[in-house]
Amino acid sequence: MATEPDIVFYHAPQSRSIIVQWMLEELGQPYRLHLLNLKKEEHKQPAYLAVNPMGKVPAIAHKGVVVTEAAAICCHLADAYPQAGLNIAIGDPRRGPYLKWLFFGPSCLEPAIIDRMLKRPEGVPGALGYGTFDTTLDLVVKAIAKGPHLLGEPFTAADVVIGSGLIWGMAVKAVPERPEILAYAARLRERPALQRVYAKDAELAAAQAA
Amino acid sequence: MATEPDIVFYHAPQSRSIIVQWMLEELGQPYRLHLLNLKKEEHKQPAYLAVNPMGKVPAIAHKGVVVTEAAAICCHLADAYPQAGLNIAIGDPRRGPYLKWLFFGPSCLEPAIIDRMLKRPEGVPGALGYGTFDTTLDLVVKAIAKGPHLLGEPFTAADVVIGSGLIWGMAVKAVPERPEILAYAARLRERPALQRVYAKDAELAAAQAA
Repeated sequence: MATEPDIVFYHAPQSRSIIVQWMLEELGQPYRLHLLNLKKEEHKQPAYLAVNPMGKVPAIAHKGVVVTEAAAICCHLADAYPQAGLNIAIGDPRRGPYLKWLFFGPSCLEPAIIDRMLKRPEGVPGALGYGTFDTTLDLVVKAIAKGPHLLGEPFTAADVVIGSGLIWGMAVKAVPERPEILAYAARLRERPALQRVYAKDAELAAAQAA
Repeated sequence: MATEPDIVFYHAPQSRSIIVQWMLEELGQPYRLHLLNLKKEEHKQPAYLAVNPMGKVPAIAHKGVVVTEAAAICCHLADAYPQAGLNIAIGDPRRGPYLKWLFFGPSCLEPAIIDRMLKRPEGVPGALGYGTFDTTLDLVVKAIAKGPHLLGEPFTAADVVIGSGLIWGMAVKAVPERPEILAYAARLRERPALQRVYAKDAELAAAQAA
């Protein structure tokens, strides 16, 4: 009898849960995929609302405990499996900046991109959590310009979060194709884990459409 | 000669940096306060932009390394000083939910409150990172209803982040005064650390206004 893996991944193809899919491919730990079909509104059904009452993907169950919020999941898994080399350990001087980037993704970069996509005005300066789109993007560009990754040499969970945001932001035409961003995205796309993600995601999306 | 503390705290009275001020009061570690006067635009001057190019408070320098984003700072400090008992350690089954709440503050609760304050429409369902104001608030209410804290008995850095959001949200009339929220806020206001924060913040604000 096959044993249940420690990680169950609640995923919908072509959604923001691709962030965690990438993280899992980088992590190299076995996981069980629990697919949701967003077009059939499966994420709004009682079975899934019992997992995540927000009715959003992604979610994971790790050793039976549900964790939601993509960047929180990445932060958690990177620390839980340090052998994958995707975290910066507590005590390392880069731990603070590493956490800063993990939080910056969902609380600054992503809302800045969404506001631009939806053409929502920025309003009073300083009112929004991220400040302005331009200061937000400038900070990221400055950090990735040095390369190869956000924190220099090591590729970390922070690159999964920020890299996902930039690639998605360019796809929806909200993030301009600045040379630093294109070069960083090209480095990320060379990773076998991200190549597997794109292949799997396309396959899963096609299966759901069939 | 006095030694410089390991933590320098860049703070402006009556701003969102009160989150980190509270965290530091709970932490009990010595820190040097670096005050900024927002009315004098000190946070937009080159001296501070060298610390945080976003021109936002809060920021800390921890052992000489700058960390920004309030929730990232709280997460970092709680792990760096576990003797304060404000973190849930890696390996504890509650670590994932603890991180979820830390991320949920700046990426769901805070933007939901700001959008309501600014009367920004929620637009297409599912477009915003937090989903809707109601599902966001419902999730928090469900978690704090059991009490005394988000994760049950232990008060953690996640309570600093989510509690700050709720108290601020009620102050600006964006968060409704539901009984569960009022009871949770009352429990938090009983904490000596938060009482010291309110006293200090009022004193610092008065000094800047003088």
